Amino acid sequence: MVDLVKNYSIIARRSKKSVIRELLKFTQQPGVISFAGGLPCPHAFPVEEVKEIANDILSNEQASHKALQYGPTEGLAELKRELIKLAEKDGVKITSDNILITVASQQGLDLVAKVFVDPSDPVLMELPSYLGGIQAFGAYGAKMIGIPIDNDGIRVDLLEKALIHLRDAEEHYKIVYIVPDFQNPSGVTLTTERRKKIIELSKEFDILILEDSPYGEIRFEGEAPPSIYSLDDTNNVIALKTFSKIFVPGLRIGWIIAHPKIIQKLTVAKQSVDLCCPSFTQLIAAEFCKRGYLEKHIEKVKSVYRRKRDIMLEALEEYMPKEEGITWTRPQGGLFLWVELPPYINTEEMFLEAVEQKVAYIIGSAFFCNGKGQNTMRINFSYPTEEEIVEGIKRLANVIKKRVAQKPVLQKEDEFEGVSF
Amino acid sequence: MVDLVKNYSIIARRSKKSVIRELLKFTQQPGVISFAGGLPCPHAFPVEEVKEIANDILSNEQASHKALQYGPTEGLAELKRELIKLAEKDGVKITSDNILITVASQQGLDLVAKVFVDPSDPVLMELPSYLGGIQAFGAYGAKMIGIPIDNDGIRVDLLEKALIHLRDAEEHYKIVYIVPDFQNPSGVTLTTERRKKIIELSKEFDILILEDSPYGEIRFEGEAPPSIYSLDDTNNVIALKTFSKIFVPGLRIGWIIAHPKIIQKLTVAKQSVDLCCPSFTQLIAAEFCKRGYLEKHIEKVKSVYRRKRDIMLEALEEYMPKEEGITWTRPQGGLFLWVELPPYINTEEMFLEAVEQKVAYIIGSAFFCNGKGQNTMRINFSYPTEEEIVEGIKRLANVIKKRVAQKPVLQKEDEFEGVSF
Repeated sequence: MVDLVKNYSIIARRSKKSVIRELLKFTQQPGVISFAGGLPCPHAFPVEEVKEIANDILSNEQASHKALQYGPTEGLAELKRELIKLAEKDGVKITSDNILITVASQQGLDLVAKVFVDPSDPVLMELPSYLGGIQAFGAYGAKMIGIPIDNDGIRVDLLEKALIHLRDAEEHYKIVYIVPDFQNPSGVTLTTERRKKIIELSKEFDILILEDSPYGEIRFEGEAPPSIYSLDDTNNVIALKTFSKIFVPGLRIGWIIAHPKIIQKLTVAKQSVDLCCPSFTQLIAAEFCKRGYLEKHIEKVKSVYRRKRDIMLEALEEYMPKEEGITWTRPQGGLFLWVELPPYINTEEMFLEAVEQKVAYIIGSAFFCNGKGQNTMRINFSYPTEEEIVEGIKRLANVIKKRVAQKPVLQKEDEFEGVSF
Repeated sequence: MVDLVKNYSIIARRSKKSVIRELLKFTQQPGVISFAGGLPCPHAFPVEEVKEIANDILSNEQASHKALQYGPTEGLAELKRELIKLAEKDGVKITSDNILITVASQQGLDLVAKVFVDPSDPVLMELPSYLGGIQAFGAYGAKMIGIPIDNDGIRVDLLEKALIHLRDAEEHYKIVYIVPDFQNPSGVTLTTERRKKIIELSKEFDILILEDSPYGEIRFEGEAPPSIYSLDDTNNVIALKTFSKIFVPGLRIGWIIAHPKIIQKLTVAKQSVDLCCPSFTQLIAAEFCKRGYLEKHIEKVKSVYRRKRDIMLEALEEYMPKEEGITWTRPQGGLFLWVELPPYINTEEMFLEAVEQKVAYIIGSAFFCNGKGQNTMRINFSYPTEEEIVEGIKRLANVIKKRVAQKPVLQKEDEFEGVSF
């Protein structure tokens, strides 16, 4: 066999096996309650509706021929029509030329990175940010610059400072990547005021904004701020959307909304990547919207996940040690909570112990493009059952209690690489 | 809006809008009989079987939850089991670790190019070769080196010469890309003897072989040579397979077979590209194999396509002008014929005239990584109806007759950039 390592491309050498993937294998062990994944609740899947639609498509000659044939790279017109209607509800007027159908939003991230990012190009993103975004930009060699967040989302004042710094340094910055709604991993939502500021910065610094919003619709309470795309009057915003969380992930359907010129270039890239998305799954998604099932399903998901979030928050309140530095977010929607522990607790070191105690989470550092966040973790409430949430938090709290009990006595705060927001 | 062109990555700047795509738009005009696409015949689609399977999957709680949920990046075990059985029929013993499920074989091409090809890396391929391969390798900056083919497939003597030349020039060559069965676009099949020689060359020159065989099973007559992968004792062969032609393209399911170390690296790349293929379409494909429908379907496809090929060959015999330099292949399977015209006929120049006469083809030069082949074209017989084949060839022959009549009187052979094999 050839010496593989000597034949790997630069992109392949940049793309390492993820630590997370290795850790996730442990969560498959019997009896482990996993808060690690980001999976939707399968018991809420609209199975009957999908069955009805699949059957109807395959019972119609014309529809079945279309469903099983190649489709255009841009995506099927039937689905685009429904996505245009969905956008209208968000106050966004688009046409078919503004849309590219993708293999969920991960492909959107990959295509945007592929088309815009050269090695060493600065990409600004939240600290922490979505792991899949970090991977996609990382593969193409982006120099990722993390901007801290607080409970109102990305710190636009620090974003502005970073942009000024990059401009002064004569760097060719291109993209700000933002997950504005119930952010993965932190669960926080960007305020309207900051969204407007981001549009202003986009104009002032002539930079593209990549808005990735897979869960915006899964809001349990409070009013939704407008999408960044809907506030945009620059054509600099590229929006990534997906059916993975608001419908089902197993069809792998997402879409990109952007100016037609951007869509055209992304389409050329998609053509050499996989020609087109499956026609069958596109038609199912189109009918799911057309028959009014999407709205009903989102209502169902919201009520299931709201209850699970509440149960998780109650369990955290009840079982977590009352120790300074232990905090968690109270997201108004989405799938995740973000937990911060005192700086002396390293969640990666604690992980195997947690798995021994039959509970798992995702180590927070995976979401920090600067390698920090060792005292943080992301926990998911959409997938486990209500009973598992209570029992799992109990177990997790016990593992943390043990660490708190081992608290180093003579600590200097700055010895630990903790983060806090 | 930002200046897009100044923000495009090097990869994006390499990936141009394809001329073919622009030409294909003309084939959408009403009344045009198109031999241009590579679409399977929708009337042969196993619609009832897919309907039965989709319904069964969605009627079972466990299966439906799996179908609509995220799956592993490597692909679902249910489908891999069936692919292992399929490989066994080809005389190949593999395990689950040898397989990565992909968005049809185009994604296989993209992932292999992404993981192994750096800008300027030489990639050797047939002249002509599959357009999607040229696009995928081109995006990553490969220096494509075309090796002429004849009726027995790629000229292994010339391949050897090219490899010697590259070795002497201290080039870091990595991959030979080959479509061995009913090659797209030429329709020719590589002989067993040459396949063995390719394995030898792979050992001698320490180079990976990428075997792309989407139609090998659609053989109308004669005996199938063994796959290159099945002859391999080097672990240097990566095989790309797809259900697009032997089942349906609308599910977008293909797979890569290779040594586990190669599969692992390709899997890491796929993870950041799209996380995983749709679980629903994977389960449908798995059941389609498991229930024995695949074998029956391949038999059906063979009988439909064989008849269409015969009709196309008869029509060519009857209507094409009897002029020196006009030849076409007689493929023993697959979906395409390859037509060569005298060097003074440029098929790109002739294209719009053909569309005016309501017939379309793909210009051959699109398949030549060296830009040659101006006197060639690919014509497809799987998609048009039998009546359309006869009528379309009649129209095409008339367009060619007109060109032959305008044959330049005082021609010097070498004034034209024709090819011949």
